[in-house]
Amino acid sequence: METLVAVGGGAAGMSASSRARRLKPDMEIVVFESTKMVSHAPCGIPYFVEGLFNDENLFMTYTPQFFEEKRKIHVKTNTKVTEIDFDSRIVYGESREGKIKAEYDYLVISTGAIPRKIPVEDGNDRIFYAHHPANAVELRERLWSLNTIAIVGGGILGIEMAEALTHIGKKVILIHRSKYLLNKTIDTELGNIITQRVSKDAEVRLNESVETIKEGGRLIVTDKGKYQVDGTIIAIGVAPNVELVKDKIKLGETGAIKVDDHMRTNYREVYSAGDNTESVNIITKKPAWVPFAPVANKMGYVAGSNIGGHEMRFPGVVNTQITKYKEFYIGRVGLQEDEARLHGFKPISATISGKTRARYYPDAKDIHVKIIADENTKRILGAQIVGGEEVLGRIDMMAAAIMKGFTIEDTFFIEMGYLPAISRVWDPVIVAIRQLMKDE
Amino acid sequence: METLVAVGGGAAGMSASSRARRLKPDMEIVVFESTKMVSHAPCGIPYFVEGLFNDENLFMTYTPQFFEEKRKIHVKTNTKVTEIDFDSRIVYGESREGKIKAEYDYLVISTGAIPRKIPVEDGNDRIFYAHHPANAVELRERLWSLNTIAIVGGGILGIEMAEALTHIGKKVILIHRSKYLLNKTIDTELGNIITQRVSKDAEVRLNESVETIKEGGRLIVTDKGKYQVDGTIIAIGVAPNVELVKDKIKLGETGAIKVDDHMRTNYREVYSAGDNTESVNIITKKPAWVPFAPVANKMGYVAGSNIGGHEMRFPGVVNTQITKYKEFYIGRVGLQEDEARLHGFKPISATISGKTRARYYPDAKDIHVKIIADENTKRILGAQIVGGEEVLGRIDMMAAAIMKGFTIEDTFFIEMGYLPAISRVWDPVIVAIRQLMKDE
Ligand SMILES: Cc1cc2nc3c(=O)[nH]c(=O)nc-3n(C[C@H](O)[C@H](O)[C@H](O)COP(=O)(O)OP(=O)(O)OC[C@H]3O[C@@H](n4cnc5c(N)ncnc54)[C@H](O)[C@@H]3O)c2cc1C
Ligand SMILES: Cc1cc2nc3c(=O)[nH]c(=O)nc-3n(C[C@H](O)[C@H](O)[C@H](O)COP(=O)(O)OP(=O)(O)OC[C@H]3O[C@@H](n4cnc5c(N)ncnc54)[C@H](O)[C@@H]3O)c2cc1C
Repeated sequence: METLVAVGGGAAGMSASSRARRLKPDMEIVVFESTKMVSHAPCGIPYFVEGLFNDENLFMTYTPQFFEEKRKIHVKTNTKVTEIDFDSRIVYGESREGKIKAEYDYLVISTGAIPRKIPVEDGNDRIFYAHHPANAVELRERLWSLNTIAIVGGGILGIEMAEALTHIGKKVILIHRSKYLLNKTIDTELGNIITQRVSKDAEVRLNESVETIKEGGRLIVTDKGKYQVDGTIIAIGVAPNVELVKDKIKLGETGAIKVDDHMRTNYREVYSAGDNTESVNIITKKPAWVPFAPVANKMGYVAGSNIGGHEMRFPGVVNTQITKYKEFYIGRVGLQEDEARLHGFKPISATISGKTRARYYPDAKDIHVKIIADENTKRILGAQIVGGEEVLGRIDMMAAAIMKGFTIEDTFFIEMGYLPAISRVWDPVIVAIRQLMKDE
Repeated sequence: METLVAVGGGAAGMSASSRARRLKPDMEIVVFESTKMVSHAPCGIPYFVEGLFNDENLFMTYTPQFFEEKRKIHVKTNTKVTEIDFDSRIVYGESREGKIKAEYDYLVISTGAIPRKIPVEDGNDRIFYAHHPANAVELRERLWSLNTIAIVGGGILGIEMAEALTHIGKKVILIHRSKYLLNKTIDTELGNIITQRVSKDAEVRLNESVETIKEGGRLIVTDKGKYQVDGTIIAIGVAPNVELVKDKIKLGETGAIKVDDHMRTNYREVYSAGDNTESVNIITKKPAWVPFAPVANKMGYVAGSNIGGHEMRFPGVVNTQITKYKEFYIGRVGLQEDEARLHGFKPISATISGKTRARYYPDAKDIHVKIIADENTKRILGAQIVGGEEVLGRIDMMAAAIMKGFTIEDTFFIEMGYLPAISRVWDPVIVAIRQLMKDE
C-alpha cells in the first residue's frame, strides 16, 4: 500500500493530505505535527489577543480527531520530525512517547515559516512572537499582563498586533525601519494614510532601526534612542522554515524550497507546499515567495492532487495581501510601483480618493485606490486599495485581472455592478483606470 | 465648427458628451433633456422613497450649470426632442419657450428606457412608476400618504421598492408572476432565500398574473383573486425607449437600437448609448440588452471617445446585476442555468452556503454562492451570490473572469485575499468552484 507522509500539519499539510485522501481512498496517510494543533489558523492570533474570541480550539478548522475519523488521516501531533532520509525515504522524529520513524512513497514538506529574529541581550522572557496558534493562550496571558508594549516592525503583523493591543487599552510603541508603515504592502500615497491613522492610537517611530534588545525585552535600543517598555513583540517578518531540509533539498533564490509547477522538489516523490515553498510571480515570471494562507492551501491542494494521480499545475502567484487597521481595510495585489520599475517595467500609476457609496446614500466610507500599469504594454501590474468597506472584493477582482494580463482598457470594461448602497456608478477602481486612460 | 447633439441627458448622454468635450475642446455640444434633471441617478429612487435622503438635487451627479460652465456643454432641460431628420441631420423639439431645432454633425441617442405598462381601467391616479428622478418628490409624497400599497413585479425594482416601503411601515402586497422573486436575476436555490426573506415583511403572491387594475389603482385583479389597496406601483420591467427613432433607425432583436462595437447605428454619424441600446453578450455572442447604469455610462464613454476621434470598442456585456433586500446583498453575472441551457451550453453547477468571516471572528454573515460552468469547455458561465457582505466584489471578480473566459480551474487559482475579519481562507466562491472540480 502506498504511504504519504506530510511534515507539518498546517494549512498546506492538511490540504495536501485531504486532497490525496479524496483521490486515493486506500492510501496510508500520516501527518507529523510538532505542536498540538493541526489545520490551524495563525491569522487569528491578533484577534485572539484582542479578545474577539476565547476558545483556542477555534483556531483549528478541524481537530486531529476529525482527520482520524472522517478522513482516515493519521495525525501525529506533538511529534517533531528531526531528520529525513530522502534516499531511503524515511522520516525520523521525536514524540513524547519517544523516537518515531516512518517510511514514505510520497512526502509533503509543509513546515511553514518561522519568524525572523533580532539580536537580544540579557534573556528573552519578555520577547514575544505572534506566530503559532498553539502558543496563543500563553501569548495572550502574557501580553494582557503588560502595560507598555513595543512592536518592532510595521508590516502586516505589526499593525494587526497594534490594532489588537491599542484596542484593549495597551500603550503601544511601534518601531519601523522605513518611512511609512506597510511599505512592503502599499506605496507611499496610501501608506501615509495608514501611518497617520495608526499614529492616533500608538507612538509610531519611523526610519528607526532596532540594534539590540536588552533586559529580556524591556529595553529597546535603536539607532536613534532607547525605549523602556514592559515587553516587546518582534514582527519583522518571516522566513521559510527549511532548516530540516536545506542541505538536501534544492532551495530557490528566495530561500524557500524550489518546486516545479506540480509542487515537486528535486526528488520526484517529494512535494513541498505552503510558506516554506517558492513559487513564480505571474507578472515577472521570476521566483517569488508569498507566505499567505490561500496560497498555502492551494499549493497543498495541487500537491495532493498530483500525489492522488489527478494532474494539476500551480500557475504562480500575484502576491495578494489584505489586512485591516480599525476602520480601514488595506489590500494590494501585483507589484508595487518601485518593484515594477526594478523588474524592468515602465510603470505609470493613478491614485484617486473616493467614496464607497452613492453620494446620497448614508454612511459612505472613504476609499483610496492606486492602480499601476506598464506604459508600453498597457498591462495592469498592480492595485492597492485602502478603504472602509468592500476593499477585498476589488482586490480579488484585480487579482483575476492581473493573473490573466488584463490591459488598462480590459479593466475599464469589467462590468462591475452598481448598487448605490454599496458602490459608485463609476467605481473607484474604474475612476483610477480612467485616469490612466487619459494619460494616453 | 462640428456640432454634437445628444438626445437624453441621463448617464449615457452626459457621459458621451463629457468624453467628446475632453477630446474635442472646440466642438459645439448640445444636450436635449425632456425633464429638469441631467446626469441623474434613477437608482436612488427607492432610497429616496425610503427617506434615506431628502434633497432631490442629490439625484444629479452634476447640475446643468456645472455642464454649462465647467464643460461648455449646452444643456437644454425641459426640452423634448420630437423628431429627428436623419438625412438632413436636424433635430426638432419642444421646450417651454416653443419649438427648437438643431443641426448636428454627430448625434447621440441616449433616451434610456421606459417602464412597461399594464392595462388599467377607470383612470390611473393611483398608479405609480418609480422611474425618473425628476418625479421622485411627487412619487414619494403620494406613496407616503398611502397605507397599503401593491407592487406588481418581483424583479429588482419590485424588491427595492418593497424594501423601501416596508421599512417605513407600509403594508405591501407584492404580486409576482413567477414561482420565486428575482427569477430573472438568480436561480431558484438562491431566489427562494430572498423570497422567504421578503415574505417576512410583505404579503408575497407568487405564480399570480395581474389581469387588470381598476379604480385608478386601488383594485388589482389577478388570475387568482382581487386586492383592494390604496395604490399600485408597476414594476414589471422596462423597455428600450425607441419610440422617437424606431421607424428610421435599425433596431436589434432585443428591441433596442442596434449598434456596432463603436456604438454607431446604421447612420455613421449617429451613435446610440445606454438603456435604449443593444449590445452583445460576451458569453453567447448573441444580441443582449442590459439596462444598467455602469453599462450605460461606458457605452456613452465609448460613443464619446469615437466621436472625439479616439477609437474605442465596446466589448459587450455579461449582465452583471446587483441589488439588496434588508440584510442581503444579491448579485449575479453571466448566464442563469436555464439561460445557459437555452443557449446550447451543457451547464453544471454548484451551490454552497457559507459564512463571510473566519469561524472565530464575530458577526459573520451568511453567504450563498452558485457557480455555473459548461461541462464541455469547463468555462465559467455564471455566478450568483446572496449574502450579508462583500457580495459585490465577488461578483465583480466573476465578471472579470467570465469576460475573459476563465475556466473552473483558472477561477480556483484566482489569488483571492484572506483576512479573517472579512473572508474565509477557502473563499465561498472557491468552495463552490472546488465542488465543480470534484465532479470531474
Ligand atoms: C499572526 C499571523 C497572522 C496571519 N494573518 C494572515 C492573514 O490574515 N491572511 C493570510 O492569508 N495569511 C496570514 N498569515 C499567514 C498564514 O498563517 C500562513 O500563510 C499559513 O499558515 C501557511 O500555512 P503552512 O501550512 O504553510 O504553514 P503553517 O501554518 O506555519 O504550518 C506549518 C506547521 O508545520 C509544523 N512544523 C514545522 N516544522 C515541523 C517539523 N519539523 N515537524 C513537525 N511539524 C513541523 C508547525 O508546527 C506548523 O504547525 C498570518 C500568519 C501569522 C503568523
Ligand atoms: C428605480 C430604478 C433603480 C435602478 N437601480 C439601478 C441600480 O441599482 N444599478 C444600476 O446599475 N442600474 C439601476 N437602474 C438602471 C439605471 O438607472 C439605468 O441603467 C441608467 O439610468 C441608464 O442611463 P441612460 O442614460 O441610458 O437612461 P436614463 O437615465 O433613463 O436617461 C435617459 C434620459 O433621456 C431623456 N429623454 C428620453 N426621451 C427624450 C426625448 N425625446 N427628448 C429629450 N430627452 C429625452 C429622459 O428624460 C432621461 O432623462 C435603476 C433604474 C431605475 C428606474
